[in-house]
Amino acid sequence: MKHTISVLVENHFGVLTRVAGLFSARGFNIDSLAVGETHDPTISRMTIVAQGDDRIIDQIMKQLGKLIDVIKVRDLTEEDAIERELVLIKVNSSASTRADLMQVVNTFRAKVVDVNPKALTVEVTGNESKIDAILELLRPFGVKEVARTGTIALSRKSWLSASETEEGRAEMVNAKPKAPKKSKRRKKAEV
Amino acid sequence: MKHTISVLVENHFGVLTRVAGLFSARGFNIDSLAVGETHDPTISRMTIVAQGDDRIIDQIMKQLGKLIDVIKVRDLTEEDAIERELVLIKVNSSASTRADLMQVVNTFRAKVVDVNPKALTVEVTGNESKIDAILELLRPFGVKEVARTGTIALSRKSWLSASETEEGRAEMVNAKPKAPKKSKRRKKAEV
Repeated sequence: MKHTISVLVENHFGVLTRVAGLFSARGFNIDSLAVGETHDPTISRMTIVAQGDDRIIDQIMKQLGKLIDVIKVRDLTEEDAIERELVLIKVNSSASTRADLMQVVNTFRAKVVDVNPKALTVEVTGNESKIDAILELLRPFGVKEVARTGTIALSRKSWLSASETEEGRAEMVNAKPKAPKKSKRRKKAEV
Repeated sequence: MKHTISVLVENHFGVLTRVAGLFSARGFNIDSLAVGETHDPTISRMTIVAQGDDRIIDQIMKQLGKLIDVIKVRDLTEEDAIERELVLIKVNSSASTRADLMQVVNTFRAKVVDVNPKALTVEVTGNESKIDAILELLRPFGVKEVARTGTIALSRKSWLSASETEEGRAEMVNAKPKAPKKSKRRKKAEV
């Protein structure tokens, strides 16, 4: 089964290698991985899509949780989450095919970002199946190059907000329970 | 200096770990990394953004080129390339702030992808500085969660097209020069 796993990590050197290493150590192939900073530059979010046995994914998630630089791990597969991916596609184009090509581009609300006499580069966002669909429709024109970002995902709930604030991080570090704070943000996250 | 490195790899198990490992072994922090399949499902493209000394980046690229699963490596930093990133931002929203919020959203041609009574989730694509700019403008409203894909890039030239075709790959594997083929695609790539 395909799993979408979101991992909040301290933006330290080597974290990526350690996280990716956990997957490869168990013989898991990562379908896609996207890493970028959050609004706190000391924290990054990794979104990993991997196929595999539920039991092993569960083990990997537990091991991820034990890594010192990992703040929070969550499997978004079964959750109500917003999933998006970005792709850049360079496709052959000529005077005779341009009209047909633009019809596909418009149907998918893709954006033309570069044109030269022989090719068109388009940018599309959507979930994985939308991206697969446009790639399939563009294939007959001759796809020259593709760059996909891999899926990123946010839960429709607010599970990660606490951990992305200073408070949330302090909370992770101090395992001991402490008196609740008055911050509104904190409260929301506890819901 | 910031480098954007595009790496075409065979879609084999553990490649990601090996590539990321090369950077961490040299003490390089990866700012962002995005991996996804190309239109050939056996080949993935990794786009890595990393800061560092030009000489060391050069060494890393040479080492990358020696990895068995790496088909091609290119530093797109100095090239004319299309760079794009996707970000999902969940931001606090209330009746009183909604109008101001929508103004920022519309200015950046962001797309609202989820709404609940307390928050709005938007999707934006652009280069890194555009993404940084919208994050900065949304910060006063209270950013709850952010997921960034990291940059992906395609050269405006067609340097990678040959290597993404079966022919191109064969070419990489066989170091020996061979008679030119008649394929149009191959010819274009040689230009």
